[in-house]
Amino acid sequence: MSQIRPAKAGPRTRLFQIIFESDTRLAKAFDIALILSILASVAIVMLDSVNRFKHYGDFFYIAEWGFTLLFTVELGLRLYCLERPLRYLTTFFGIIDVLSILPTWLALIIPGAQSLLVVRLLRVLRIFRILRLMQFVGEGRLLVDALKRSWHQILLFLCTVMMIVIIFSSVVYLIEPREAGFTSIPKAVYWGIVTLTTVGYGDISPVTPLGQFISVMVMLTGYSIIAIPTGVFSAEVIRSIRAERYSDEACPGCGYDRHERNARYCLRCGTWLNEETPDPRKVRRALSKPPSDRSDTDT
Amino acid sequence: MSQIRPAKAGPRTRLFQIIFESDTRLAKAFDIALILSILASVAIVMLDSVNRFKHYGDFFYIAEWGFTLLFTVELGLRLYCLERPLRYLTTFFGIIDVLSILPTWLALIIPGAQSLLVVRLLRVLRIFRILRLMQFVGEGRLLVDALKRSWHQILLFLCTVMMIVIIFSSVVYLIEPREAGFTSIPKAVYWGIVTLTTVGYGDISPVTPLGQFISVMVMLTGYSIIAIPTGVFSAEVIRSIRAERYSDEACPGCGYDRHERNARYCLRCGTWLNEETPDPRKVRRALSKPPSDRSDTDT
Amino acid sequence: MSQIRPAKAGPRTRLFQIIFESDTRLAKAFDIALILSILASVAIVMLDSVNRFKHYGDFFYIAEWGFTLLFTVELGLRLYCLERPLRYLTTFFGIIDVLSILPTWLALIIPGAQSLLVVRLLRVLRIFRILRLMQFVGEGRLLVDALKRSWHQILLFLCTVMMIVIIFSSVVYLIEPREAGFTSIPKAVYWGIVTLTTVGYGDISPVTPLGQFISVMVMLTGYSIIAIPTGVFSAEVIRSIRAERYSDEACPGCGYDRHERNARYCLRCGTWLNEETPDPRKVRRALSKPPSDRSDTDT
Amino acid sequence: MSQIRPAKAGPRTRLFQIIFESDTRLAKAFDIALILSILASVAIVMLDSVNRFKHYGDFFYIAEWGFTLLFTVELGLRLYCLERPLRYLTTFFGIIDVLSILPTWLALIIPGAQSLLVVRLLRVLRIFRILRLMQFVGEGRLLVDALKRSWHQILLFLCTVMMIVIIFSSVVYLIEPREAGFTSIPKAVYWGIVTLTTVGYGDISPVTPLGQFISVMVMLTGYSIIAIPTGVFSAEVIRSIRAERYSDEACPGCGYDRHERNARYCLRCGTWLNEETPDPRKVRRALSKPPSDRSDTDT
Repeated sequence: MSQIRPAKAGPRTRLFQIIFESDTRLAKAFDIALILSILASVAIVMLDSVNRFKHYGDFFYIAEWGFTLLFTVELGLRLYCLERPLRYLTTFFGIIDVLSILPTWLALIIPGAQSLLVVRLLRVLRIFRILRLMQFVGEGRLLVDALKRSWHQILLFLCTVMMIVIIFSSVVYLIEPREAGFTSIPKAVYWGIVTLTTVGYGDISPVTPLGQFISVMVMLTGYSIIAIPTGVFSAEVIRSIRAERYSDEACPGCGYDRHERNARYCLRCGTWLNEETPDPRKVRRALSKPPSDRSDTDT
Repeated sequence: MSQIRPAKAGPRTRLFQIIFESDTRLAKAFDIALILSILASVAIVMLDSVNRFKHYGDFFYIAEWGFTLLFTVELGLRLYCLERPLRYLTTFFGIIDVLSILPTWLALIIPGAQSLLVVRLLRVLRIFRILRLMQFVGEGRLLVDALKRSWHQILLFLCTVMMIVIIFSSVVYLIEPREAGFTSIPKAVYWGIVTLTTVGYGDISPVTPLGQFISVMVMLTGYSIIAIPTGVFSAEVIRSIRAERYSDEACPGCGYDRHERNARYCLRCGTWLNEETPDPRKVRRALSKPPSDRSDTDT
Repeated sequence: MSQIRPAKAGPRTRLFQIIFESDTRLAKAFDIALILSILASVAIVMLDSVNRFKHYGDFFYIAEWGFTLLFTVELGLRLYCLERPLRYLTTFFGIIDVLSILPTWLALIIPGAQSLLVVRLLRVLRIFRILRLMQFVGEGRLLVDALKRSWHQILLFLCTVMMIVIIFSSVVYLIEPREAGFTSIPKAVYWGIVTLTTVGYGDISPVTPLGQFISVMVMLTGYSIIAIPTGVFSAEVIRSIRAERYSDEACPGCGYDRHERNARYCLRCGTWLNEETPDPRKVRRALSKPPSDRSDTDT
Repeated sequence: MSQIRPAKAGPRTRLFQIIFESDTRLAKAFDIALILSILASVAIVMLDSVNRFKHYGDFFYIAEWGFTLLFTVELGLRLYCLERPLRYLTTFFGIIDVLSILPTWLALIIPGAQSLLVVRLLRVLRIFRILRLMQFVGEGRLLVDALKRSWHQILLFLCTVMMIVIIFSSVVYLIEPREAGFTSIPKAVYWGIVTLTTVGYGDISPVTPLGQFISVMVMLTGYSIIAIPTGVFSAEVIRSIRAERYSDEACPGCGYDRHERNARYCLRCGTWLNEETPDPRKVRRALSKPPSDRSDTDT
């Protein structure tokens, strides 16, 4: 949210602190109220779709409009207290804010559109702004670090898997009768992924011995290779945790900045790192040599 | 169970030791007998619900009442030998003890209630009191530590997942025909979780190509992200294991900081680690050499 | 197989080497032939049960008897070349050897019993005798170590899970209509495990909203807690691997035998471990003190 | 692809660089164009099998032949610019190149064969030639290392699992009625694997209490033992990561052996690690002090 800056004026800055930050008590209260109303509105959208609650239809309708107006006003305030309102609309949360009220307005034209209101849930992501306690961020960072370092291995993994699935699936498509549900290769691929991920709906399942043999291959593959992303990610998390063991303050001698927290000498230039206490080597040497020598060993 | 203290009187204290502790042979015997009768009573509750055993109904009925009376008496004794009986009823096990006999009494009024008697199983948790061997506790602690340190990462993970599922599900709800079983958003969410967790009942499954495509997305997500809680937890368990085997304080001689807790000399440079007490070697040496020598052995 | 010793006589000892050991070329050939015939016999048992192969019935029947006689003879030879034949029959492989031929003989009395012949597969475990290459054993040991150290944590985990499942299941049993398939608590528990393990047959699935809500709880539980045994086991495997880093040769000073392979001083008594080269401390000290001193520092 | 060498002649060498390498801009463009056309052709093969697109049949037919001719020409060029064309046809990619055009030609004789064209996907493996960035290869190597070191443990694991499944399945085959779908042992094994891998189609599921009990055993087994390959693989990945970051040779000064590869001084005792070349500090010091001083700084 770097590009979000409050407007100059006094009251708007104050409003900014309440709406966009969560340091003051008032701001926290606002955030919590917002999140609760988001959850409530989502609940209503969901219940609205249940048949047995049809006779509450009017209530839902009113509540729905209530929340929509509420969020519309809130968005208005957000834009009002910003220096660059339009730029906010291009941020992740800006887009979500709009999406979260658009459907109701659209529903005036297109019926059924308000089911999309669940997108409001994304606004709950704001909750993490409250949860931003030190440790929490710390651990969040660990996860993010690990994901960053493992994502393209896992992507590589998924691509390979997809290729295998597509090839296996089309073989099964050739083997299995159309009646078994393998009416097309895409459908067969759907079956293949249902099988590999061990979901196994059973809406489509092979009936020929050969088809069943191949699907057994797919199952065992899916059952075994799950170890790969898990292993990679575990390793990365562990690496991240260990990374915490390193201090990033630079060595006074050579500036190298990845020493273990308890390192006493720089691993690159051998400089004594602990600046509070004197270097034992120097002390020893000092005792056994003429002072004239000390100057050039200060590196 | 800190707030559980025996009553003053002699016999009640003795009873307390038998019922609440498991050090003496008699106490152990009591615990085991209790657990066996708990398991037996649960088995009877379960079998009682099976149709083919209907003609054993009377036997089950009697046994059921037998166990109920037994546990009622036991609870009475527990309360009797305690200093503060009522406070016990507020503890975890106190509540369970009551819950485990309540249903039968209730069943006199509400039929079918005794199916709830399986809650008795929770009393089996007492078994861990017996298994409290050193190592066992130790490892238990490891798990608990790891869970404590990873629970809110895993919670964070589950919340994010839930949001994704709800949004995907309602999109599928819009796409899929009602006949396919997606009769409401909550139902669609039920389907979404069935799919993401790779359970895949198949009681509801998408029929439209687009719906199937989205469900494939959900499956692959569920299949991949399981790596996250697993990775986090593995890392925490490993950290716990390492934490308990090694002390973190660095060797004064060379700074090596991964000594096993029982190390007395640094395994790298042989320096005496226990700084409170003097190094036996130096002491010995000191006794047998001129003071002039001591300086260079201080490294 | 410690209690297996060859008979005294010459030829029988030679036979022993061929049948029970796998060092000589002949012994290896015997093992491989044995394993192939085991696999073949199992294949035949399996194919025999397939309807479309019914007309090969006679061939299967003959082959079946062929293998049975073969294995009977083999067992005879095994017993013949042993010092204590009867004791062998009490070993794991002895029992399996008998089980693997018994069904066919039994089938003369009880029809259908020969389906049990698949137990022959267990004899394939002998294959590991061939695979007993150094590394293989090494890694096998790692796994076994890890399993040994993690089994009761995993057992503890499974017990807790079972209790949760039973309790959840009986609640669902109370909620769901009998038509949905929840005809008894054991059946509900069957459903519960099908759900928790994310197998999800779909032969029984909840139909009431409340039932579906609870099953969602069960699914999420099953989906998350898989992280626990995985984490524990991963940690143990890693610990085993690290354990390889320790040498188990005892310290000459105090006999402590868990030093890291590259340790130079005993972490308990500070003795110099590397016996080939002299202790630098002693050397330094030796240079700076009267010889009279050296004797008592040899500890 | 070591046995692939360009032909001597000038133009063909140039062509070789474009087709087989990906260093020049032109070569990269060629690779990308190739991959896109591969993906496009696969997409067409898949869509071709969908009923609702039947009326695009002619278009698909033409496009299909277009791609086939394109790939045929490409293969021709590949062979043309090689020194040993026939040898290329024996390489992995050579075989795939042929397989990826063969089906269309075959389809002139055998109808439906072109469904096998999805094998073209394998050609996309060429993509990794483009992605061959340093880090990427590095991480790929990590995975491969880990797989190499864990594959026969995982194989051992799968074999054991298969044996257990086969034995359990044939017991269930004996118990369950044929109507439940357990018509033969192979079918029962198919069910067993569907269950153990937690896929759970539900096309075959036990109906007798005993059968359901055994399948519960299978489920719990499958649910628990997934921890084994995951644990093994995680451990290996972690080992690979650590192996590459640290050198194993111990510091001559203090024996600490977990220095990062680029360390020049021991981070514990400041000793110069690179034994080939002299320590710059000592050199400097040597130049500026009397020889009598050198002895005690050799520690």
